[in-house]
Amino acid sequence: MLRIALDGMGGDHAPAAMVEGAVQCLDRDPELNVVLVGRPEALEPELARLSPPPGRITIHPASQVAGMDEAPGHVLRHQRDASIRVAFDLHKAGQVDAVVSAGNSGATMAVGMVVMGRLPEVDRPALASVFPGLSGPTVVLDVGANVDCSPLMLLQFAYMGAAYAERVVGLANPAVGLMSIGEEGGKGNHVVKQAYEYLKNSGLNFIGNVEGRDLFAGPARVVVCDGFVGNVCLKLAEGMFKALSRVVKERVAVSLTGRLGALLLKPTLSTLAKDLDYENYGGAPLLGINGVAFVCHGASTPKAIASALVVAAASVRGRVAEHVADGLAQYRGRLLGDNGAEERE
Amino acid sequence: MLRIALDGMGGDHAPAAMVEGAVQCLDRDPELNVVLVGRPEALEPELARLSPPPGRITIHPASQVAGMDEAPGHVLRHQRDASIRVAFDLHKAGQVDAVVSAGNSGATMAVGMVVMGRLPEVDRPALASVFPGLSGPTVVLDVGANVDCSPLMLLQFAYMGAAYAERVVGLANPAVGLMSIGEEGGKGNHVVKQAYEYLKNSGLNFIGNVEGRDLFAGPARVVVCDGFVGNVCLKLAEGMFKALSRVVKERVAVSLTGRLGALLLKPTLSTLAKDLDYENYGGAPLLGINGVAFVCHGASTPKAIASALVVAAASVRGRVAEHVADGLAQYRGRLLGDNGAEERE
Repeated sequence: MLRIALDGMGGDHAPAAMVEGAVQCLDRDPELNVVLVGRPEALEPELARLSPPPGRITIHPASQVAGMDEAPGHVLRHQRDASIRVAFDLHKAGQVDAVVSAGNSGATMAVGMVVMGRLPEVDRPALASVFPGLSGPTVVLDVGANVDCSPLMLLQFAYMGAAYAERVVGLANPAVGLMSIGEEGGKGNHVVKQAYEYLKNSGLNFIGNVEGRDLFAGPARVVVCDGFVGNVCLKLAEGMFKALSRVVKERVAVSLTGRLGALLLKPTLSTLAKDLDYENYGGAPLLGINGVAFVCHGASTPKAIASALVVAAASVRGRVAEHVADGLAQYRGRLLGDNGAEERE
Repeated sequence: MLRIALDGMGGDHAPAAMVEGAVQCLDRDPELNVVLVGRPEALEPELARLSPPPGRITIHPASQVAGMDEAPGHVLRHQRDASIRVAFDLHKAGQVDAVVSAGNSGATMAVGMVVMGRLPEVDRPALASVFPGLSGPTVVLDVGANVDCSPLMLLQFAYMGAAYAERVVGLANPAVGLMSIGEEGGKGNHVVKQAYEYLKNSGLNFIGNVEGRDLFAGPARVVVCDGFVGNVCLKLAEGMFKALSRVVKERVAVSLTGRLGALLLKPTLSTLAKDLDYENYGGAPLLGINGVAFVCHGASTPKAIASALVVAAASVRGRVAEHVADGLAQYRGRLLGDNGAEERE
């Protein structure tokens, strides 16, 4: 059996969407139990309403809630009984195998990092996101944990992303690309140019620079970038998909032939929407910490929460943290033989 | 009458697509004449084949062609008779009002900058692109001219973008947003945080940070970012639109009801495709030089070239360069009153 702590109080639609997501995931993964962390008086009524199978969802009390706009440092210092903090404390104590939260993402990352600690060779943990694409899913990282990155951090992200792609997404020896603005190695900003040199000698299946267009139809199954670029990409893709869906709906609705056509196309388009829907991909794993944590969109629906719980369970089974650590340890010598040593903070 | 020099030799489909684009634009703008620059032996047969109205398209000879992968510095120093160089020489000499090229974009920007010179307050010219969106077109810059930008460069881009939005796109007092990864002013990397402070005091209609999702449905009509982020966004949006179109086509083709539905939806979807089609938006203006230049996609079709010529003509009429210069001159005192002075290169 696996046990995952879900922050019951974090997210725009908490606690209702969290409790519902926890219940939804039980059918999808029969070996998964959920520990809902938060105020029992808020969680119990929701749970009672849904009457899940006995014993698979428990409530662990936490009296505080980290607000969506609370500074991560404040949560760390002053909210020792915040639901997100208690969830990670349970993980650290070995009482759960992973943490999932749709709450304040900065606080989730900071608390996760401090409570769980970093893996030996990791300067900074990174948030990864799986983009659906024509050539298969693509693991993109960092998508928001680190806005200013060094070349060595990008190299570490590559090892983390490759381990995740291999152990959770199921892609053997995944092709790794470096996000830049031209395919040749000399293209990009100064951080990317140096990272290119490191990646060439990484022992990873590095295929060189990739561009924005490759996120949906390119050869790389892992794409490395700083958290600023990755976060902009993630939100751009989300926003564009939503905007296109809205436009199609609006335009189709105004004509009779359009409405009829849409009716006939519906089975096709809903399969497509499902493939592209971020709700099916769960949250973003925080890679590089000594544990398993998933950060979900604040607006997460129950379905998205259920997906995140299922993917988090797969990450526990895939022993991602251990594999990330192995990958980085194996190449430490290589890094330090280069001029990596001086660049470390 | 307006005269625009078109690099007849640059682009994946040159010279045929260039000549055809030149001919196509004549109907769309009856006051526009085109000077095709390049090898007469390559251009004349194409032109003869299309027999355009007499006198509106002329050929100006240039014996060299800047290769798509040629280093910009090499083109500048060793290819004085390259078509792109001759086109800018004509502009500098006042014989044409603008330059359009689908050739080597790095060389086009470098030659344009050196031959035409920068406007007085501009550290670095920027490439702008107009994104179609639900709330109206959005001018995004820089999309690839400068990979590493200072906060002050981002501020200059804001003035340039606002002038372009106002004088060419027709948006009065456009809302200006700063691309970041959170809406609050404190979010972003260190360059963005400082740029935020400058923009607050810019006198522009600055609405704060925007995110990736706002490029297609947000309140800002001008979005400022460095050329690395902007280029990734541009290519991501292009790639995603192409990938979605391809998936819809493939899936629709496999079912009979899907094919029938698609037939009925066709008028609706082709209006939509037209609105979103980059071919209709022409090239990307190089703002901040002392002249008018448009950089087009290497794969430009004749239609895209014609659009770029038409938009370039509108830019000449809108006196964009003068307005960019006015905006920057007006705020120079403000900049230098701050700590801008020390930060200039």
